[in-house]
Amino acid sequence: MQKNNDLDSLRHSCAHLLAKAVLELWPGSHNAIGPSIENGFYQDFDLGNIKISETDLPKIEEKMRKILPSWTHFEFSEITLKEAEKLFKHNPYKLELAKEFASEGKKLTTNNPGNFLDLCKMTHVENPAKELCYFKLLSVAGAYWRGNEKNKMLTRIYGTCFSTKKELDNYLWQQEEAKKRDHRKLGKELDLFLISEQIGSGLPIFTPKGTILRELIENYLVSVKKKAGYQFVWTPHIARAQIYKISGHLGKYDAMFNPIELNGEDYILKPMNCPHHFQVYLSRPRSYKELPMYIAENGTVYREEKSGELAGLFRVRSLTIDDTHAIVRIESIHEELAKVINLIKKVLQDFGFKKFKARISTSDAKNQKKYIGPRRDWEKAETALKETAKKVGLDYEIGVGEAAFYGPKIDVMIKDSLGREWQLSTIQLDYQQPKNFNLMYIDEKGLSRPTAVLHIAMIGSIERFVGVLIEHYSGKFPLWLSPVQVTIIPIADRHIKYVSSIVDTIELQRIRVELDSRQETVGSKIRDAALQKVPYMGIIGDRETESRALKVEDRKISVRTREGKDLGQMKFSAFLQKLKEEIDKKI
Amino acid sequence: MQKNNDLDSLRHSCAHLLAKAVLELWPGSHNAIGPSIENGFYQDFDLGNIKISETDLPKIEEKMRKILPSWTHFEFSEITLKEAEKLFKHNPYKLELAKEFASEGKKLTTNNPGNFLDLCKMTHVENPAKELCYFKLLSVAGAYWRGNEKNKMLTRIYGTCFSTKKELDNYLWQQEEAKKRDHRKLGKELDLFLISEQIGSGLPIFTPKGTILRELIENYLVSVKKKAGYQFVWTPHIARAQIYKISGHLGKYDAMFNPIELNGEDYILKPMNCPHHFQVYLSRPRSYKELPMYIAENGTVYREEKSGELAGLFRVRSLTIDDTHAIVRIESIHEELAKVINLIKKVLQDFGFKKFKARISTSDAKNQKKYIGPRRDWEKAETALKETAKKVGLDYEIGVGEAAFYGPKIDVMIKDSLGREWQLSTIQLDYQQPKNFNLMYIDEKGLSRPTAVLHIAMIGSIERFVGVLIEHYSGKFPLWLSPVQVTIIPIADRHIKYVSSIVDTIELQRIRVELDSRQETVGSKIRDAALQKVPYMGIIGDRETESRALKVEDRKISVRTREGKDLGQMKFSAFLQKLKEEIDKKI
Repeated sequence: MQKNNDLDSLRHSCAHLLAKAVLELWPGSHNAIGPSIENGFYQDFDLGNIKISETDLPKIEEKMRKILPSWTHFEFSEITLKEAEKLFKHNPYKLELAKEFASEGKKLTTNNPGNFLDLCKMTHVENPAKELCYFKLLSVAGAYWRGNEKNKMLTRIYGTCFSTKKELDNYLWQQEEAKKRDHRKLGKELDLFLISEQIGSGLPIFTPKGTILRELIENYLVSVKKKAGYQFVWTPHIARAQIYKISGHLGKYDAMFNPIELNGEDYILKPMNCPHHFQVYLSRPRSYKELPMYIAENGTVYREEKSGELAGLFRVRSLTIDDTHAIVRIESIHEELAKVINLIKKVLQDFGFKKFKARISTSDAKNQKKYIGPRRDWEKAETALKETAKKVGLDYEIGVGEAAFYGPKIDVMIKDSLGREWQLSTIQLDYQQPKNFNLMYIDEKGLSRPTAVLHIAMIGSIERFVGVLIEHYSGKFPLWLSPVQVTIIPIADRHIKYVSSIVDTIELQRIRVELDSRQETVGSKIRDAALQKVPYMGIIGDRETESRALKVEDRKISVRTREGKDLGQMKFSAFLQKLKEEIDKKI
Repeated sequence: MQKNNDLDSLRHSCAHLLAKAVLELWPGSHNAIGPSIENGFYQDFDLGNIKISETDLPKIEEKMRKILPSWTHFEFSEITLKEAEKLFKHNPYKLELAKEFASEGKKLTTNNPGNFLDLCKMTHVENPAKELCYFKLLSVAGAYWRGNEKNKMLTRIYGTCFSTKKELDNYLWQQEEAKKRDHRKLGKELDLFLISEQIGSGLPIFTPKGTILRELIENYLVSVKKKAGYQFVWTPHIARAQIYKISGHLGKYDAMFNPIELNGEDYILKPMNCPHHFQVYLSRPRSYKELPMYIAENGTVYREEKSGELAGLFRVRSLTIDDTHAIVRIESIHEELAKVINLIKKVLQDFGFKKFKARISTSDAKNQKKYIGPRRDWEKAETALKETAKKVGLDYEIGVGEAAFYGPKIDVMIKDSLGREWQLSTIQLDYQQPKNFNLMYIDEKGLSRPTAVLHIAMIGSIERFVGVLIEHYSGKFPLWLSPVQVTIIPIADRHIKYVSSIVDTIELQRIRVELDSRQETVGSKIRDAALQKVPYMGIIGDRETESRALKVEDRKISVRTREGKDLGQMKFSAFLQKLKEEIDKKI
């Protein structure tokens, strides 16, 4: 029996239940495999000539509920290949697997909840009748047997299962909500970005509004980082292939694009910014007085993701990393880590993420051969990561053995407004690249000493972050991040002249304002602005235009919110004050 | 005789004089070709085993001056190939050319200033003895016969010649000055950029100070353009190769990089931003109300320049164009052009260029087949360009027949502080790409109509512009463009604590300030800041520290300039005021 965690057992057990129900409903069908996956499970079937769709799912669920009470436990047995060949003689898929397992010298096991013998090597729940209550079938799709398009197309049913009703309901709500705020859908509706087939999949183009959002994010990051002493650089998007030999990526790192030939030499689209940033460090000898040196760039890198894995802004081929390479003295790692994690916390909070935790990927002390460098460096670094997380008040989990061979790392994970977890920030501690690139410094005694590098991304890829922000806020960005902050709506044409001066005054305050002077009713202009998720609408009619004789600050404006709230008439100066306060507070 | 302009005739005639002198000094030598080039001329020689260097140039010049008085005119004759073979039997280079010209059916001509017969088809000056007085030999280099490395390596002597002494002196001074302020030299000294062999030639990396300069240029451009209603977008650096089939560049445009293969399809590093920007326009149907639409991006493009042609930041492979594509109604071209040229004028003036003129590249009415689109569109567009130049007070010259096949263009050329001309800004008028990409709009009557595109670059490539700025200002950027605006220098360690609070106060005013707390003398700190071309140094000693008890604005600071001027002690508030004024005025 292979081990898996509780939720996996639950979901995998539920896949058995699904198999049993389908085989009862459509006798002569065969079940193939049924693993647990992220957020649920699936089960593949050969239904012969029968075609089913999502409208059949309630019927199958009913059957599953009918069968469930009789499933009080799974009975495991070891069988021989001969027995397997007899037991599964009608199911070509199980037969194929049984033969394969046997030929690999693996044991063959069956499980049986009482009335459904299946070839299976996984663990299952103790008491299915009690534990499998909270399931839901989700969708139907086609899938080739073993993922090979030369094989038969099977029917795949997706479902999910949780240990409590609350968790199931929450998940289903989350899915429903996530569909509504899908960033691909909202990105189009709010005109933020587009993916053009003429340019290529996975290569998003940011439209004017989306570019404003990007700029706001980038400018914020640049300003926060500069205040912390980070130095920004600009580097090109290609490099001679041979630099990735030095870094060790060539031939090892899968996501690199194919090379570009130039004068008999290969150049490569950069898949990361590190080697470029190191050139700045290497441009002259460095003294201890210059360390730590934080070299930062919002650098666009290119990664060859598979077409099938591209997904809106979440998985792209052109991604702009808010990259920093901190080149530090080895003895100052502890201190620098704390500074960086504190800054990350501030950044994530400023973007509206209030809940986060950390995941620390460490070396496996039992398997030291996997890692380079002296053991005490590792211990120090891992302790530094744990202590720092504790110090800055971050809950953390440990991923033992998940460190890269050259150093441990800490990821900061946020929870979005749907309770979904995202890994955005990461700090990787690296003793290896400083050796590969000979990143040395002269210490107080005039000796040349090696540095360590922290690879820091605070929000990860800007493209993916825009996607997360869209879904987190359902497109209703806080005022400071809204591409258009105010729409000014004149009630009639006779107000347009006055309104233009109002727009100019707002613009002078560096507030992003749009004038809607279309020949539409006020109602439909308000509706359109709300659909575009513009935080505030300023409405100007006769009453407001009459106030033009007053001093600017005493003039009147009627204000509504995108949530449909009518804030009534207020002084123009009070409105501007309100906007500025919200922008400053980033709410 | 082939026609060339006066300066070309002068310089080419001077190359003859050089040839005669060298052949007299080293009998048995042969002269090969001796054309006029930009800013001068060269003459190639086969000197046998003799090696000469720049120390020989005075001797050659002396000989030239000795010969010159006897050269009162050039005598031309047409000769037959047979005659040529006889006349030039000792000179294999002239023989080869004579045979080649004859085989192409070209006439063979000689010229003779009295004592030096040469095969030549160019025009020469009327009276060499009078006109060739103001020459100077500049350098010696090796060059393969006909540029082919399989041929013999010849000796090339470069020189220049002007019609007046003043012009020659000015040119030599310009050259001398240009050498001192070479942006490659200053770029290194001021730590602005570097070219790393590990990354590749022609792929400059901007260091922290250079990146600040880039950012200042970019932020200025973005702000000026946004005020004018330009909309910024962000687009990736590659695209499917096939889009350059649509645009017509594939196979025609030489500077494209080789493709990158991905899943059996070709992708290409973008050599220009137009097709990417058009995707934004094409993302939904457009109405006349949305025009003109100015789509802008500081977009990095990649061009495969030859290694031998790369030159610092002036000729690079990764260049960031301050690109705008204005998609306009054909009937509004005139109006839009005026707006754009006025904006360009403002931009160039803000960067400190006060002298400029325009060059308008038009179609050749006698050769209408070369150009697409109706003749009246061309006439209108060319008239628009000329009228607009006149209206905004730009002198212009016309390059008849220099237009691209799809439309005329106007370049704005600046003169730098050495009087050198640079072509920075360009507006290209394009009727063709709107057709290739089907850039239509719906007019007032609901009809679909074609647009025109203005391709606009205000400063051209940011990389090249940085190079021009460095040389124009000799690294002494005006205050608003200086990466470090003020260096604060404490006289002794006991002043450092107070000085830090001063630095913080200056930083709060968004002024870029550095603290020099090194253990060096004040004199050497002042010298170093001046070498780094930091505009102002604020010196804090006992007297200044005593003023700490006063209100911030009443405190004292001693100020010096990078030019070595001592501005004496002033109120801190007065100093900040002075800085702000200079920054605002961009002086």
